[in-house]
Amino acid sequence: MLEGILKNIQEKAPLVHCITNYVTVNDVANILLACGGSPIMADDEKEAAEITGICNGLVINIGTLNQRTIASMVAAGKKANELGHPVVLDPVGAGASALRTETTFALLKEVKFTVIRGNISEIKTVALGSGTTKGVDADVSDAVTEENLEEAIGFAKELSSKTGAVIAITGAIDIIADEKNAFVTRNGRKEMAKITGTGCMLTGVIGAYICANPDRVLEATAAAVAVMGLCGELAHNHVERIGGGTGSLRVGIIDQMSLMTEEMLQGGMKVELG
Amino acid sequence: MLEGILKNIQEKAPLVHCITNYVTVNDVANILLACGGSPIMADDEKEAAEITGICNGLVINIGTLNQRTIASMVAAGKKANELGHPVVLDPVGAGASALRTETTFALLKEVKFTVIRGNISEIKTVALGSGTTKGVDADVSDAVTEENLEEAIGFAKELSSKTGAVIAITGAIDIIADEKNAFVTRNGRKEMAKITGTGCMLTGVIGAYICANPDRVLEATAAAVAVMGLCGELAHNHVERIGGGTGSLRVGIIDQMSLMTEEMLQGGMKVELG
Amino acid sequence: MLEGILKNIQEKAPLVHCITNYVTVNDVANILLACGGSPIMADDEKEAAEITGICNGLVINIGTLNQRTIASMVAAGKKANELGHPVVLDPVGAGASALRTETTFALLKEVKFTVIRGNISEIKTVALGSGTTKGVDADVSDAVTEENLEEAIGFAKELSSKTGAVIAITGAIDIIADEKNAFVTRNGRKEMAKITGTGCMLTGVIGAYICANPDRVLEATAAAVAVMGLCGELAHNHVERIGGGTGSLRVGIIDQMSLMTEEMLQGGMKVELG
Repeated sequence: MLEGILKNIQEKAPLVHCITNYVTVNDVANILLACGGSPIMADDEKEAAEITGICNGLVINIGTLNQRTIASMVAAGKKANELGHPVVLDPVGAGASALRTETTFALLKEVKFTVIRGNISEIKTVALGSGTTKGVDADVSDAVTEENLEEAIGFAKELSSKTGAVIAITGAIDIIADEKNAFVTRNGRKEMAKITGTGCMLTGVIGAYICANPDRVLEATAAAVAVMGLCGELAHNHVERIGGGTGSLRVGIIDQMSLMTEEMLQGGMKVELG
Repeated sequence: MLEGILKNIQEKAPLVHCITNYVTVNDVANILLACGGSPIMADDEKEAAEITGICNGLVINIGTLNQRTIASMVAAGKKANELGHPVVLDPVGAGASALRTETTFALLKEVKFTVIRGNISEIKTVALGSGTTKGVDADVSDAVTEENLEEAIGFAKELSSKTGAVIAITGAIDIIADEKNAFVTRNGRKEMAKITGTGCMLTGVIGAYICANPDRVLEATAAAVAVMGLCGELAHNHVERIGGGTGSLRVGIIDQMSLMTEEMLQGGMKVELG
Repeated sequence: MLEGILKNIQEKAPLVHCITNYVTVNDVANILLACGGSPIMADDEKEAAEITGICNGLVINIGTLNQRTIASMVAAGKKANELGHPVVLDPVGAGASALRTETTFALLKEVKFTVIRGNISEIKTVALGSGTTKGVDADVSDAVTEENLEEAIGFAKELSSKTGAVIAITGAIDIIADEKNAFVTRNGRKEMAKITGTGCMLTGVIGAYICANPDRVLEATAAAVAVMGLCGELAHNHVERIGGGTGSLRVGIIDQMSLMTEEMLQGGMKVELG
């Protein structure tokens, strides 16, 4: 499953423009390089659209957003849409403040996204902004579990239909869905939540994966999610062996991403059709 | 001494809002997670107070401050005061520029702090801003030493009395004082000064420690200072064994923070009443 | 060759003011400390010139520049010129957007630089802004190779003559030139391009090296370039031994910088007069 996706990234080395938060920006840049892509960070309104123009795709991450960078996100997003470049949205903290929720809604209105990735809480906020109220209630609770999996997949498909974007809901169980099909992935370790930025890093990696596989966006997104989780597993095993902690886990995840091969991916990924 | 403080953090996993500098923000987030807390970084005036409202405490660090973020610091600080949440100030570089000194003074006027942590030079500047001139002269020199320790403790107690905050003066010897009592801690390694952000990280850790131990602020701050120094010692030992340098030391400090236990703390901390 | 340069840095511990991008700022600070210097990051217009005033030198890096920080760069650069402090320019991405190109030109007009470091593409853009059109055409291609080396050295010398700055063009082969003399260095590993910020880190290190060796700017810059490449080689060897990847390479480069000695430098550097 998902054959050839990794090879495309390593061959094409897609250039990905990231407007992303300053907390995890260095890790996002390093993991983008590690996975075979190439990052450019630029967030001033005077250059955002122009930089998008020389790249293969765009990642917008609203963590530590500010009033200066929001305008840049919109300008870069519109430019990417004009050029037919893939655009990924990571609505970090949507629902946690009015600014983040409103910015998410404004971005959904102004920009057509190729992939939207977040945790269940963030994705529920996205659903509110896209007029999808079904599923944004007690029925889909605050975590995707084996019990509510079917329901959550239905919610993701419906949101994909409304937004036109592949929806990636990540957590202990991940769902990656377009309006018709879904993948469920179960890679990853709970320890990954003890380092900042694994979500931001994954969003960057998705950017590279879909830029290099524009005709296989659903599959490429699922592969990115599985690979990131697999890197976490492999890094965790290494950290256990050396008696390390979360500092080493962070280094190890980037290490594993840079060492990833098709064989490792095929041998380690836990992906199934949903 | 200081029993149970660590357990409270690990059980309560306090959510700490950080308005902090972009140089060390990633390390602050990672060490907050490593010590058992959970960080949210948000610095736009439009969301700063609201984010504070959903957190358990606030850390304000004025390194790389700018005119946009100063207003956010004041707004978030006032909100935390309203809600009775603990607020920590790290006056990075106070005294080095008029902007930093004036911002420190403005923050002291507008916000009631629970803990103020800095090196001796920064804390002397804080004293000027709180009308405490005693001790801010040649009497308390540029480093706390065994020779001037009593005097420095007296200075810290007086400053605590003026500001209402626990004062943590960190260096080779650390003083943590309220108006009546003081702890002296002697953990740490001089090599920690060869990586950026150990002070900023400690301030973040103090935030988590006092959020989880609101009735034991003095003790919790002393424990945080001792634990951070102990992590530096343990990481330094590890780095020596592997033949590493300062890059490994940085990773190792976060590792050790994530591995810290009550037993390690009780066995390794060098804390005494001042 | 280049004897005593390292010793001067370790003895003088020069304080270097950096206005640099938020992607790699933490690595720049840590490698500055590792090489024996001391960093201060400050980018608000209200304090930029004042902070420059208390430092020994200034590094301006235009990656993730924005309209707020450009004014700070100019103000700090002018102040450093007034004080006779060395100033290094890293024109990250010059040529990639009008904002970066124009900012580079504006900085060249307003500030006298001691060293300008970039890749060949960025340095060609600098040449356009300094009225040096020779060499900024097909004659000097997009990489310095053994075949076009003489020509590239000539271009670097001419640009040095126009700008008054030592020019460092870094890549697989590095050229460091003033108007009369040039060094060619061949340290480094291609894997260094798989981590973000090796260029930014080098620029920071150059800042420390020239601050501590103000009378030997050309040599000190060549030494910094060689040392950075050597750290990459040593770190790469270590990473191969432990089976690591690019995350470990990044940590290893900073480790090696902190462990560097005159003996290691003399034994490992590949420097010749150009």
